[in-house]
Amino acid sequence: MKVILVVGDGMADRPLKELEGKTPLEAAETPNLDALAEAGVCGLMDIISPGRPPGSDVANLALLGYDPLESYRGRGALEALGAGIDVKIGDVAFRGNFSHVEGDKVVDRRAGRINGLIFKDYLSNVSLPSHPEVDVTVLPTLDHRLTVVLRGRDLSWKVSDTDPHKDGVSVVRSKPLDDSKEAKYTADIVNELQSVLRDLMRRSPLNSQRLKEGLPPANAVLLRGAGEPPAIAAPLTKMYGIKGACVAVTPTVRGACRSAGFDLYDAPGATGGADTDAISKAKKVLEILPKYEVIYLHVKGTDNASHDGNPSLKMSVIEKIDGMVGHLMENANLGETYIAVTADHTTSCSARDHRGDPVPVAIYGPEIRSDAVASFSERSCAYGGLGRIRGKELMPILLDLLGKAKLFGS
Amino acid sequence: MKVILVVGDGMADRPLKELEGKTPLEAAETPNLDALAEAGVCGLMDIISPGRPPGSDVANLALLGYDPLESYRGRGALEALGAGIDVKIGDVAFRGNFSHVEGDKVVDRRAGRINGLIFKDYLSNVSLPSHPEVDVTVLPTLDHRLTVVLRGRDLSWKVSDTDPHKDGVSVVRSKPLDDSKEAKYTADIVNELQSVLRDLMRRSPLNSQRLKEGLPPANAVLLRGAGEPPAIAAPLTKMYGIKGACVAVTPTVRGACRSAGFDLYDAPGATGGADTDAISKAKKVLEILPKYEVIYLHVKGTDNASHDGNPSLKMSVIEKIDGMVGHLMENANLGETYIAVTADHTTSCSARDHRGDPVPVAIYGPEIRSDAVASFSERSCAYGGLGRIRGKELMPILLDLLGKAKLFGS
Repeated sequence: MKVILVVGDGMADRPLKELEGKTPLEAAETPNLDALAEAGVCGLMDIISPGRPPGSDVANLALLGYDPLESYRGRGALEALGAGIDVKIGDVAFRGNFSHVEGDKVVDRRAGRINGLIFKDYLSNVSLPSHPEVDVTVLPTLDHRLTVVLRGRDLSWKVSDTDPHKDGVSVVRSKPLDDSKEAKYTADIVNELQSVLRDLMRRSPLNSQRLKEGLPPANAVLLRGAGEPPAIAAPLTKMYGIKGACVAVTPTVRGACRSAGFDLYDAPGATGGADTDAISKAKKVLEILPKYEVIYLHVKGTDNASHDGNPSLKMSVIEKIDGMVGHLMENANLGETYIAVTADHTTSCSARDHRGDPVPVAIYGPEIRSDAVASFSERSCAYGGLGRIRGKELMPILLDLLGKAKLFGS
Repeated sequence: MKVILVVGDGMADRPLKELEGKTPLEAAETPNLDALAEAGVCGLMDIISPGRPPGSDVANLALLGYDPLESYRGRGALEALGAGIDVKIGDVAFRGNFSHVEGDKVVDRRAGRINGLIFKDYLSNVSLPSHPEVDVTVLPTLDHRLTVVLRGRDLSWKVSDTDPHKDGVSVVRSKPLDDSKEAKYTADIVNELQSVLRDLMRRSPLNSQRLKEGLPPANAVLLRGAGEPPAIAAPLTKMYGIKGACVAVTPTVRGACRSAGFDLYDAPGATGGADTDAISKAKKVLEILPKYEVIYLHVKGTDNASHDGNPSLKMSVIEKIDGMVGHLMENANLGETYIAVTADHTTSCSARDHRGDPVPVAIYGPEIRSDAVASFSERSCAYGGLGRIRGKELMPILLDLLGKAKLFGS
């Protein structure tokens, strides 16, 4: 028995005026999602608790069966794990941008959306003169983004960003976010790293080259989102004795899955945007399905469209997800495969941000207690046989359907 | 965006023989509540947890978004806050009655429902000879009621009442309710206060006057409901960066709202009884609505009628609440206002007491995911899109609808 968990990022929404009071999920053409809901069991799910909007990091931990209130330790380490770095408990990791700074002022946080991979070798051996006891890893990832990992004793993730999160203002100093000496020590390290990277980037010949070409130099690195790996007793795969895989582009999602012990896969043409090749993702899932019990299949484009306040673009990505699910239903062995569909949070096209409304969830498969719900949406699923559950409860339900849940008691 | 939360005290009930198996909410004429339910999203709500009847103090804390299991510290401080005293963490407050006592026996706990305000000045400077380190405030409130606040170090609210809660029996001594030395110390103080007040009241010229007039003297004070302010990290208004207001008569409700950082308002003609002017309350809400994000609008009469076992009186108060909600729906700007209606608990007209059944809840407003429920009642709302939620979850849901909820994670 296997399960494919399909997650549409920010796919749930609120009724929208532009859609005559429908949500994008209600307005889109979704014959396959509706068929899955009709044959399956549906419900509403509060990713954390009613009315509490989750970030992507927190939401994906919950969908992987972890309680984010207990396990969440910031986003940085999830990103670094997703980027392929072997982050360990005790390490502190950051997300970062290659940025263009003049004096102390941020001119462009993304340095003209520079492709930072050109600095990969140049930054492969960064060290801190005043803190030689700390190992530093700097890894450019996608476009202007990078990830930084600090390894050493007595580090804390309770430190603030050096990224002011907008252009035209000063770079900020990292500050301890609690009273511990570990946080103070780590903030000092981050501030030294900030100035070491500033010097290195200023002196980079690649930046001299960019200046000659009239391009904005990436002469600073701005850090944000300090984090340790999630505080979990064991990866999900170990806890349940299963093999898991993740088909996703988004680094945080890949990192969350990796922390759960999942193998990470790419699919050709999958971009993380509205132009993604969702059928290619379905094909990748079908290709690797024989080797795994649980596959986490994530599509990002719905969230981006919501943050852009674009309901029709969101509908088109939802229709791609529908096609992807249709491809899975047609080609997977449905006698031994469960398919679950949900969203990691509500992203409101009108607010252009995450909201705390519950998300719909549908589970279809061989031994499911089907209900009367006949379509997949925020409102229809409220009448489903699952009732209203929590995000962290979905994975245990799925693993129990596979017969992998352990008896409590005797 | 704004929200008006309408709370009918003890408005929910069980099916009653006298009403041919209907609840008072089902039997009453409630066109406005039904219209609100039809256009909105409905559900059932366990104020604490299924089958656990809450007191008014606990219930209102839950509706304000606090977990009563963590934050509740007795009723006394809520009453004192509601009476306008600036009770602080560490203070211990009591509810009290002016009572008529002969020897040690309670003749009339309410001393003929005396208006205790006549003793206000006389009791404005009470002190304890054996415990001069403790400051005492005695404030007569409504009718025969008063509130008492002790301020000092090492006080505990874990002490029992001196009020025996019925006539014809002896005044009781306050006892520590746990093994702490703070509770023992506080019980000693309460017992000294009891005797100091007894002496003061005996010697009051106002009581000599009452005796001359053939009226029962208020020659003792009986104390009950020791409490500290709720143990909350911060007032709701600070936690969410909002302004809140309370339109209510009941001291406990006003105190709970004040502890949440809400401003307190009166409405002309609002009495806390079945004769209350509910339209006046609606008008007050509309008057102050421009200044606030959240308004807590409480009507008490439904609970009193239930405790009196009077379903038809309860129905008449429910119909007043219906008219009040109708006035709000007609006159508020519904493009930017959410209106939620619920009860703080079930009060059974047949048991004449609180019960642990869930209460109905309906939320109506601009971006609500409406459901198929078309009337507002204990049974119809069980089929609503909210499913079954907890009391402490309602306020986060409402604040999230306003866009005031903070993201957890990033």
